[in-house]
Amino acid sequence: MTKDFRSDNILGCSTEILDAMTRAASGTATSYGNDEITARVRERCGEIFERDVDIFPVITGSAANALAVASMTEPWGAVFCHVDAHIQRDELGAVEFFSGGAKLITIQGAEGKLHPVDVQNAIDDVRNGGKTAVPAVLSLTNATEAGTVYTNDEMRSLIEVARLNQLRVHLDGARLANAIASATTRVTGVDILSLGATKNGGLTADLIVVFNKELAEGVSIRWHRSGHRPSKSRFLSAQIEAYLTNDLWLRNARHANAMAARLRDGISGKVEIVHPVEAN
Amino acid sequence: MTKDFRSDNILGCSTEILDAMTRAASGTATSYGNDEITARVRERCGEIFERDVDIFPVITGSAANALAVASMTEPWGAVFCHVDAHIQRDELGAVEFFSGGAKLITIQGAEGKLHPVDVQNAIDDVRNGGKTAVPAVLSLTNATEAGTVYTNDEMRSLIEVARLNQLRVHLDGARLANAIASATTRVTGVDILSLGATKNGGLTADLIVVFNKELAEGVSIRWHRSGHRPSKSRFLSAQIEAYLTNDLWLRNARHANAMAARLRDGISGKVEIVHPVEAN
Amino acid sequence: MTKDFRSDNILGCSTEILDAMTRAASGTATSYGNDEITARVRERCGEIFERDVDIFPVITGSAANALAVASMTEPWGAVFCHVDAHIQRDELGAVEFFSGGAKLITIQGAEGKLHPVDVQNAIDDVRNGGKTAVPAVLSLTNATEAGTVYTNDEMRSLIEVARLNQLRVHLDGARLANAIASATTRVTGVDILSLGATKNGGLTADLIVVFNKELAEGVSIRWHRSGHRPSKSRFLSAQIEAYLTNDLWLRNARHANAMAARLRDGISGKVEIVHPVEAN
Amino acid sequence: MTKDFRSDNILGCSTEILDAMTRAASGTATSYGNDEITARVRERCGEIFERDVDIFPVITGSAANALAVASMTEPWGAVFCHVDAHIQRDELGAVEFFSGGAKLITIQGAEGKLHPVDVQNAIDDVRNGGKTAVPAVLSLTNATEAGTVYTNDEMRSLIEVARLNQLRVHLDGARLANAIASATTRVTGVDILSLGATKNGGLTADLIVVFNKELAEGVSIRWHRSGHRPSKSRFLSAQIEAYLTNDLWLRNARHANAMAARLRDGISGKVEIVHPVEAN
Repeated sequence: MTKDFRSDNILGCSTEILDAMTRAASGTATSYGNDEITARVRERCGEIFERDVDIFPVITGSAANALAVASMTEPWGAVFCHVDAHIQRDELGAVEFFSGGAKLITIQGAEGKLHPVDVQNAIDDVRNGGKTAVPAVLSLTNATEAGTVYTNDEMRSLIEVARLNQLRVHLDGARLANAIASATTRVTGVDILSLGATKNGGLTADLIVVFNKELAEGVSIRWHRSGHRPSKSRFLSAQIEAYLTNDLWLRNARHANAMAARLRDGISGKVEIVHPVEAN
Repeated sequence: MTKDFRSDNILGCSTEILDAMTRAASGTATSYGNDEITARVRERCGEIFERDVDIFPVITGSAANALAVASMTEPWGAVFCHVDAHIQRDELGAVEFFSGGAKLITIQGAEGKLHPVDVQNAIDDVRNGGKTAVPAVLSLTNATEAGTVYTNDEMRSLIEVARLNQLRVHLDGARLANAIASATTRVTGVDILSLGATKNGGLTADLIVVFNKELAEGVSIRWHRSGHRPSKSRFLSAQIEAYLTNDLWLRNARHANAMAARLRDGISGKVEIVHPVEAN
Repeated sequence: MTKDFRSDNILGCSTEILDAMTRAASGTATSYGNDEITARVRERCGEIFERDVDIFPVITGSAANALAVASMTEPWGAVFCHVDAHIQRDELGAVEFFSGGAKLITIQGAEGKLHPVDVQNAIDDVRNGGKTAVPAVLSLTNATEAGTVYTNDEMRSLIEVARLNQLRVHLDGARLANAIASATTRVTGVDILSLGATKNGGLTADLIVVFNKELAEGVSIRWHRSGHRPSKSRFLSAQIEAYLTNDLWLRNARHANAMAARLRDGISGKVEIVHPVEAN
Repeated sequence: MTKDFRSDNILGCSTEILDAMTRAASGTATSYGNDEITARVRERCGEIFERDVDIFPVITGSAANALAVASMTEPWGAVFCHVDAHIQRDELGAVEFFSGGAKLITIQGAEGKLHPVDVQNAIDDVRNGGKTAVPAVLSLTNATEAGTVYTNDEMRSLIEVARLNQLRVHLDGARLANAIASATTRVTGVDILSLGATKNGGLTADLIVVFNKELAEGVSIRWHRSGHRPSKSRFLSAQIEAYLTNDLWLRNARHANAMAARLRDGISGKVEIVHPVEAN
């Protein structure tokens, strides 16, 4: 049996998601996000995260991240993130573009994780450094780019640093399912979440979940102005609805985590594993 | 029998398009637009438009327009368009955002159409007006926002004005199929086309078609940087492929045109028709 | 005796202004606007305009306008102005640049003047036009680009339209002295004033006067971030101080107005005067 | 005798500069940089740097830096600079603002100096890091923020790295006079220089010197669009002309260097000197 290790984007999508799109296609609906499917996804997210939320379906995780972060900072803001964060490494300056020139301040951290003391030092450095930028956002990633998962205590400590310094908190959850599948995962204190589906059995839909309601209008207007608001947004919502129904997202993630663990066990002792497999 | 006149976005999508997505979902593919489906759509567009093209699938017509126009102007450019153009009326300043502040110069014109002499006057006014902006792009829409269709001669004359003034030409073809279904439609001299599908039986995919190859790299990098480049872009391409296969796009458009004509005949003499029904 | 009609920028500056710079140069001072001269100018402006103000000296009227307007609108805002306004005609899109892509909505008006009904219609057109932009700012110019002067009643009516529509009001006062020299001139209801000196005997200094204090911080940070905050800003302030002392600004303006009247009388009946000479 | 160690901005300006402004004020001139004084400064810079140049006088070093760097990169470019560079530390994101969101990649280096191997590593990291940004500019500072001076060999090696990687080179010369006063200083290979005067006896004028002529038009248009092009730019040029006449700039710098050396000698052994005094 051959294996394909190219990327988590090469696969198609879960049957449930395709079926949901087919159902969505058979009927009419109001346009631009005011449809029933989108309304149901909003409700479902409210249940999962146990608070009232606003949601905005988008086509990529980059769009989710850039729209979220740009809605949390002025153009002269500093956005603190891991040196390997997707917003720094993979988006060709999308945050800078959407925000009008905010400055990403990158922080080192083993295993893809940030540590509170390093975040505090980075903030202090900007604050004391004259006129670098105005500290505005802490952007966390869970599961991290290295595949590791923050414990709830680690998340709590990082978010505490943000709050003490009056920063808003963005959570890049492109692989949040993989984190949740391995442990309960704290989102308390997060202002906006980028919830990924594409990399986890989805088709072409990710979701912006806004916990801090006062940021929703800014997200909404940027969503439209950047061409990310589809007239038939129900087709994105339908994918997300299927993804969040019957724990499909968690089942897909557990499968991926199990595969990663199996891969780890298989190669253990034969090659050096750069990052530990935590999400299992 | 009741009718639903709300919008052209309320309907679902053609069966062929949904089938194409299902097929695309059963298999693996390379990511980020380097897949076989996208390659086939590029080839198909080359046949339709009878020249070599580059293509970039996107989720909205606004994204297509903004990415196209921003790739044709400096931030200090003037973009000439009809006062009712979608880029002026419906996108919350997407062109301004993507271009870094280009200035839309709007021009009046009956029935949604621009006239060459008015375009020339607007260009002269900017050129002579001191330091308003640097004339850069003429953006045409066909079928127009009023549902009318430019004749080939009208297109030729407008594009001639653009060329004489060293402007690039953008064609907003959100409803290009409706224009083509009623007459052969000139695209010679167009640098970039926004080809719509969503409003004409599509699902969630429109297409940027680049005729002027030297603009392709700029489109490509903006496509990524704005979060509009899906990792699984084959799912957008699959929709477009079905749309352009067996003349589905033209069949859908002819149907819509016929419905418009029938509507016109039905209400003729009873109410005033603001714009003539030309696309038939 | 020959005359030089080239522009109001070809002349040098008033002796008083040069003397003030010489005095400012003989001594030390704190940097970046925290000096005594700047403090005195702030106080002087408070007297002239009969309210507490914040001030920011800049090197050009374009900088004053762009910083002011950008501090009053989101990137997706609509800025209403006369079709011949300096911000539309002469600044190469400075407002679009500083604001991140706001849209200037230009309005026709005889003699360089806007009329309330036309402003209201333009606002309604944007409000009803779907997703053009979000109405944000009314930018007035007094004396106008045509050299005419708004009466107090005209100003009051225009500002009333802005207030009823929740717009902020910018006043481009590049030639405010010429207006004030001919009549008392209303600034009540103006949020930010661009006060010109360069065209009226000044050297290289104009002034942003912020009446709406909640906008001051936004102006301040943009002033720095755009490279318009001189370390030795006292040399700009010294020019403004001399300009506002002993009515130098009004004396210069009255002289210019008298020259314009004399020119009018001299050519009257011989050539057609395009705009009436009102500022006398 | 008391000393004032606050900043190099607290002092006034050299007598020669004030005299030059007085002369410039007595007469008329064409506007917007087309005057004789500006023409003479351009010629003088050509002599000093031994090549044909274009010049643009501005009011701050931040404006010079931001206009220069923005003219050398696309919005998605990477700008490599020392972690303590003025463009990173002191300008509130001016480069990000003027460029439309370019990304500053900061590099550590002892004594304020960059080392070629670290610059190459940073470029490699961006190139290999997926989609961080497109390497575009190396920005050097001489004398550095730490007061140290690059030797000619050091400059040559750094510029060589830039050239091998197809980067353009910006030189922040806010204190270039202090560097030149201590040694011949290489500018070969530099595309644009920000030449400071304000911190070295000047009044309110710095100068953009463009060596790479193909960048001049982009600087020129940004100069205007950002409100940095004074109608009476001769008053800035007059300051620069005096500054560059009879070696005033080098005499002022030598005096400052001597004062720094005297300070070093006076405190030597009593306190730890963080950076060596090289510019002597």
